[in-house]
Amino acid sequence: MRTTADVRDDVSTTGVINCAAYAGGQRVADLPICDIHEALEHSDRFIWIGLNEPREEVLREVQREFGLHDLAIEDALSAHQRPKLELYEGSLFVVLRTAQLLPGGIGLEFGETHVFVGDRYIVSVRHGSLKSHVGLRARCEAAPQLLNKGPGFVLYALMDFIVDQYLPIVEALEEQLETLEEEIFGERFDRETTARIYRLKRDLLALKRAVSPLVDVCNRLMRYDISLIPEDTRPYFRDVYDHVVRMNEMIDNLRELLTTALEANLSLISVSQTEHTKRLAAWAAIIAVPTMIAGIYGMNFDAMPELHWRFGYLYAIGMMGLVSIGLYGIFKGRRWI
Amino acid sequence: MRTTADVRDDVSTTGVINCAAYAGGQRVADLPICDIHEALEHSDRFIWIGLNEPREEVLREVQREFGLHDLAIEDALSAHQRPKLELYEGSLFVVLRTAQLLPGGIGLEFGETHVFVGDRYIVSVRHGSLKSHVGLRARCEAAPQLLNKGPGFVLYALMDFIVDQYLPIVEALEEQLETLEEEIFGERFDRETTARIYRLKRDLLALKRAVSPLVDVCNRLMRYDISLIPEDTRPYFRDVYDHVVRMNEMIDNLRELLTTALEANLSLISVSQTEHTKRLAAWAAIIAVPTMIAGIYGMNFDAMPELHWRFGYLYAIGMMGLVSIGLYGIFKGRRWI
Amino acid sequence: MRTTADVRDDVSTTGVINCAAYAGGQRVADLPICDIHEALEHSDRFIWIGLNEPREEVLREVQREFGLHDLAIEDALSAHQRPKLELYEGSLFVVLRTAQLLPGGIGLEFGETHVFVGDRYIVSVRHGSLKSHVGLRARCEAAPQLLNKGPGFVLYALMDFIVDQYLPIVEALEEQLETLEEEIFGERFDRETTARIYRLKRDLLALKRAVSPLVDVCNRLMRYDISLIPEDTRPYFRDVYDHVVRMNEMIDNLRELLTTALEANLSLISVSQTEHTKRLAAWAAIIAVPTMIAGIYGMNFDAMPELHWRFGYLYAIGMMGLVSIGLYGIFKGRRWI
Amino acid sequence: MRTTADVRDDVSTTGVINCAAYAGGQRVADLPICDIHEALEHSDRFIWIGLNEPREEVLREVQREFGLHDLAIEDALSAHQRPKLELYEGSLFVVLRTAQLLPGGIGLEFGETHVFVGDRYIVSVRHGSLKSHVGLRARCEAAPQLLNKGPGFVLYALMDFIVDQYLPIVEALEEQLETLEEEIFGERFDRETTARIYRLKRDLLALKRAVSPLVDVCNRLMRYDISLIPEDTRPYFRDVYDHVVRMNEMIDNLRELLTTALEANLSLISVSQTEHTKRLAAWAAIIAVPTMIAGIYGMNFDAMPELHWRFGYLYAIGMMGLVSIGLYGIFKGRRWI
Amino acid sequence: MRTTADVRDDVSTTGVINCAAYAGGQRVADLPICDIHEALEHSDRFIWIGLNEPREEVLREVQREFGLHDLAIEDALSAHQRPKLELYEGSLFVVLRTAQLLPGGIGLEFGETHVFVGDRYIVSVRHGSLKSHVGLRARCEAAPQLLNKGPGFVLYALMDFIVDQYLPIVEALEEQLETLEEEIFGERFDRETTARIYRLKRDLLALKRAVSPLVDVCNRLMRYDISLIPEDTRPYFRDVYDHVVRMNEMIDNLRELLTTALEANLSLISVSQTEHTKRLAAWAAIIAVPTMIAGIYGMNFDAMPELHWRFGYLYAIGMMGLVSIGLYGIFKGRRWI
Repeated sequence: MRTTADVRDDVSTTGVINCAAYAGGQRVADLPICDIHEALEHSDRFIWIGLNEPREEVLREVQREFGLHDLAIEDALSAHQRPKLELYEGSLFVVLRTAQLLPGGIGLEFGETHVFVGDRYIVSVRHGSLKSHVGLRARCEAAPQLLNKGPGFVLYALMDFIVDQYLPIVEALEEQLETLEEEIFGERFDRETTARIYRLKRDLLALKRAVSPLVDVCNRLMRYDISLIPEDTRPYFRDVYDHVVRMNEMIDNLRELLTTALEANLSLISVSQTEHTKRLAAWAAIIAVPTMIAGIYGMNFDAMPELHWRFGYLYAIGMMGLVSIGLYGIFKGRRWI
Repeated sequence: MRTTADVRDDVSTTGVINCAAYAGGQRVADLPICDIHEALEHSDRFIWIGLNEPREEVLREVQREFGLHDLAIEDALSAHQRPKLELYEGSLFVVLRTAQLLPGGIGLEFGETHVFVGDRYIVSVRHGSLKSHVGLRARCEAAPQLLNKGPGFVLYALMDFIVDQYLPIVEALEEQLETLEEEIFGERFDRETTARIYRLKRDLLALKRAVSPLVDVCNRLMRYDISLIPEDTRPYFRDVYDHVVRMNEMIDNLRELLTTALEANLSLISVSQTEHTKRLAAWAAIIAVPTMIAGIYGMNFDAMPELHWRFGYLYAIGMMGLVSIGLYGIFKGRRWI
Repeated sequence: MRTTADVRDDVSTTGVINCAAYAGGQRVADLPICDIHEALEHSDRFIWIGLNEPREEVLREVQREFGLHDLAIEDALSAHQRPKLELYEGSLFVVLRTAQLLPGGIGLEFGETHVFVGDRYIVSVRHGSLKSHVGLRARCEAAPQLLNKGPGFVLYALMDFIVDQYLPIVEALEEQLETLEEEIFGERFDRETTARIYRLKRDLLALKRAVSPLVDVCNRLMRYDISLIPEDTRPYFRDVYDHVVRMNEMIDNLRELLTTALEANLSLISVSQTEHTKRLAAWAAIIAVPTMIAGIYGMNFDAMPELHWRFGYLYAIGMMGLVSIGLYGIFKGRRWI
Repeated sequence: MRTTADVRDDVSTTGVINCAAYAGGQRVADLPICDIHEALEHSDRFIWIGLNEPREEVLREVQREFGLHDLAIEDALSAHQRPKLELYEGSLFVVLRTAQLLPGGIGLEFGETHVFVGDRYIVSVRHGSLKSHVGLRARCEAAPQLLNKGPGFVLYALMDFIVDQYLPIVEALEEQLETLEEEIFGERFDRETTARIYRLKRDLLALKRAVSPLVDVCNRLMRYDISLIPEDTRPYFRDVYDHVVRMNEMIDNLRELLTTALEANLSLISVSQTEHTKRLAAWAAIIAVPTMIAGIYGMNFDAMPELHWRFGYLYAIGMMGLVSIGLYGIFKGRRWI
Repeated sequence: MRTTADVRDDVSTTGVINCAAYAGGQRVADLPICDIHEALEHSDRFIWIGLNEPREEVLREVQREFGLHDLAIEDALSAHQRPKLELYEGSLFVVLRTAQLLPGGIGLEFGETHVFVGDRYIVSVRHGSLKSHVGLRARCEAAPQLLNKGPGFVLYALMDFIVDQYLPIVEALEEQLETLEEEIFGERFDRETTARIYRLKRDLLALKRAVSPLVDVCNRLMRYDISLIPEDTRPYFRDVYDHVVRMNEMIDNLRELLTTALEANLSLISVSQTEHTKRLAAWAAIIAVPTMIAGIYGMNFDAMPELHWRFGYLYAIGMMGLVSIGLYGIFKGRRWI
């Protein structure tokens, strides 16, 4: 049997993060994949393997050890699956999607975690989400009485772990909507606001595609037809179910609000267009009336008495000024300017 | 056994509002949590405990006394649950959301009430909604023949109490819509109208999330598979069900009307834009024509007979005036001004 | 036993419109509520009571006579229920909503009719819809062979009666939509059109809330699990069901058309805005070009030969006229004016 | 027994188009309604009656002969039913809606066909759709081996016949949409386009109401609970089912495209508004700048050297021309004009 | 028995692409349709026939050989079916729609493949999609252990093959949406953008109609009621099911994003309209103010001191210039220009 250190060295080359045997809720041995066989001879033990983008031969070895189905292995190799639960004879295959906010808080990045669960083993295969599982194994090992429930419980812990990571994302998207609301209703919207609404919608749809299939997955895990999940573990899946349903609701809520926000945005763009038209009209009038007066006194009639007044010019300029000020006052009063 | 006064003193520190034993529909004893054990020895009694944001140790003590499930207790500690009903062996766990209009009638505030119901006990745990239960216990105690039905009936009373509080809120939101209708169709809308439509939509969606899961909760309580609810109490849950369904319908109705109102608002903004454009055009014409006439008599042709007429100037000014008045009349007639 | 006249006198004070015993499809006795007891001793008789906003004590007396459930009686007292069917041991409780066009054909008014049906009795309680039942009893008594089927058939007759009243209302709303279509597409829409679309939508939603729950009510009455409805009466409820489903479809149809009408309206408002902008631009050009020409001949250059032409002035005015007429022609040709 | 000629003569007065007995897939006799009785004595025969808006007494006679249910007969008399299938003891009642394009290809007209099917008879009653069944009987008689399957097969033939008539209509509506697309995206839309979109939507909704209830009708006819439809005839109804589902999909597809077309139309109206505004602005600038220059040289300053240049006037006019041409070029380059 | 070459020669005239017998996963014989009979006498063999738009007599011969149902054959002759699965006694009939991007990547073209599956045979009939099956038979023959599972597995291979061809199409449509997003949010949208959004929507709806019925088809093939699909082949259909569901989700996602994109487009058109209006107004003001000043100095008052200043003209021109530059600066600062 190799040492833990040996096993760790393999990670970068083989994709094996961890491979340990558990008994009575305690880790009793770290072992290489090829020794699984021996470990399973202790009937009270189960194996928990963590893989990260493993090389095909590693996955094939795991397949041989546990007798996993070809189609599930092919799924695990290719990634790009939607979240699902598949029941093979004697084993479960679960696909989960992990999510992360991109740095800067704008945009989402998705990874995948595939899990094989049997009576005596659980194998997780990660794609593009290395950070996502940090701490999970430690947390499980800190609660031996729960870990003792076996692979079914580890599956719960893993799903709970991943689902818990959705919440901060949904909250970040909620904050983005709030910022958008402030922009829209605080008269600070522009071309970019519409683009941001669109991008938020796109992220919500993508997140929805990760979360909503889990409602069905949890539902099936809670039911009584899957013997791999011991009865006392089922309420835990109900807990995950609750989280998923709530998240789903929050996402739908955000989507509906976003649709309304987009329409409200359009309304306000129209309102602001009307306001600009009014302001324009007001200033046009303020300039047009003096221009008309100037035109009148620019006529060449022989007999235009004002032209010969001593203060005719002043009078004309004054009249223009008064009219302009008057119009300005009127428009100001009607809040056109 | 401690006195009622002693128990009351504990509220602020422990979160225990009330803890009493009932027999034959009558309150027979107030008791501290630690004495529940003894009280349950009388086989005709049930315990009704009211907690408000209790300290964890209080909740844990209650858990020990009644053997409640760990996951339910964790839910009750953290709040932020969606309304639901969970069936554990020998006990029900119900989560309800309480709602209140913020002072000023604009905006909603939500709290949560979690209820544990067993054969011989009912425990309610409130979060952020102290006022919400005032009077409930008094009302139940005033109807001993009903209270005698046991914890199942108290659950009904509690749900009825909370659901009854939604109605004034839905009505307040209906009134807000009516005010919005008046603004929109009474030509008094502005930028704020759109914002108010949006906020009303947000409140409706939040209220919907509190109300709609109750349809399913009541449905299950009415059915025949939950033995904790005695058969003669089930019609009462049908009553709550009716209220919830009706409220749900009212909310959906409001949402659909609101969507239409938002679209109508956009239409009317466009109409009002057209009207402003017309008014603008009319006034532009009224100014432009005299300006043109003035321009004509400002030309420097040698032979322009009008220039030498005695009343040429008057004639020109008069013509300008007539044209302007004529145009004004035309536009007035077409309701452009 | 009192005379019919006595019974009739009570209406205004007690709310009892009619209370009669039937045997073999024939009315055999009018009787006061307090004598129901005796009448039921004839095992071939059933009682049909019609109440209109009855005083609570009357309803309580009826409750005692027939052993009705407390919750149903409370519903019947308060009104404001949604249409529903409730099954109590030995009795049915049905809530229906009656509808009427307000005088002038604009706006709807809703009432409620609550019906208690037992093996040997049927009690209808009306709220805010006195006119609605006129003629129903007479019509039933005119078909003794049908009335002989008992209270289940009377329930059918009552539901058919109420559902038949929806049709003219739906047709009136269809006509309103047609009028709106003419306004919208006949270029006669204005601010009021949008308001009318909104009000029609509101009425449709309200009517929908009265009609659509009946689909489910009829469905259950047609099924084989309600023993109070004799088997040969069930096809009649299928008839009501058909009416309700058809009405429901008509309402949904109207709603969808209305949504499209609102969007079409917005499109046409925009089209008409474009047209006004074009017309405006055309007239602006027709005025601006002569103004420019006048400006040119108002320049003060020493050498401007035209100024000294004999018919220079005429030439300038003519040019202005020609340009204006030319522009007018061009715009007319392009249908801008 | 009367001759075929006698029977034919009755059509205009009684509404009986055809009434024949079939045995072994062959028409063995034409007979008047009153002789049905005798014909049914041959146990291998079935009767096929075709009625067109029959007089009530004819329908009542048919009812007596076959023992049809009162409610079905009343439906057949009044028309205005939605498509449905009703199961009475020993008989089926099917309502179908026939559809026809109005001449000119714009607008739809609907009729109804009601069918009573029993073990030994089939009666079709047409309302407002005489042309619709032409050729059906001939086609059936041309395939005796199929007609031999009995009334169940004739029902199939009739439904197939009617459903086949929907396809050219759906295709005509698809063509209308294509024409609308060309108008909308080919910049040839106007006020009428919006009206046509609306009318197409209305036709689609009406057609949908004729087609979509048939999905359910066919579904029930395909199932195994209707003994009147022999097992080997059921696959034929699956064929009708397929047609109906496909038609339904085509209609839904058209509806969704139409909604998008209406929105695209609104977008393009706005785009075209923007373009008009730009063109307007361009021409306004082209006129305004020369006007300004003319204004400058119309000023009365003593010292304005240009005024005294020999070619000052030409220079001014030239400048105006150059500026105008320059602006025209700029706007042309930006595609504003 | 004829040679392979003979068989190949027939393709263009008869539509028979391939007709071979398989045993133990190996192709054991190429044979003409008329020899099928003999081949089926070896009880370990199954026949796989590939037809491409076959002549009716060929299809009829196949029908006779395998006893296929008339209705299925008629479907296979006419094409224009929606994807479906039909269960006849002893045989399955599956309709699939094939899809291809038109050259240039814009627009889709659809074909159909009909498949008859029996215990010992599989017949595929292609319409308008010759290219679509290239390589399928070779791929199957390369995996004899799988091909050995029989016609059920070939059905899977065929469906997988066709469904795999949807993915590049969905991805091409996703790219089209991305290009549209860039146009819309990168201020490069025009009239064509709206038309492209519409066309993308149309393609998505068409593709949806090909893909979404397959969810149901696969679902039924995965279930346990179809004995023609051996139990160990069912997980393979679950694989196809997964692909179809994922594709379906991607299409729905695209549709919802497209709807949002269309609305965002409308918003941005309005924003850009507002911006043009502002720019217009700014330039109008920059021209109007100097014109007004010129008008003032064009007045003919006797006493206008500036007119006699030495640099009056320069002063006036300068003032005009300054005002214009000032206004330009203000508008530039407010980003109107």
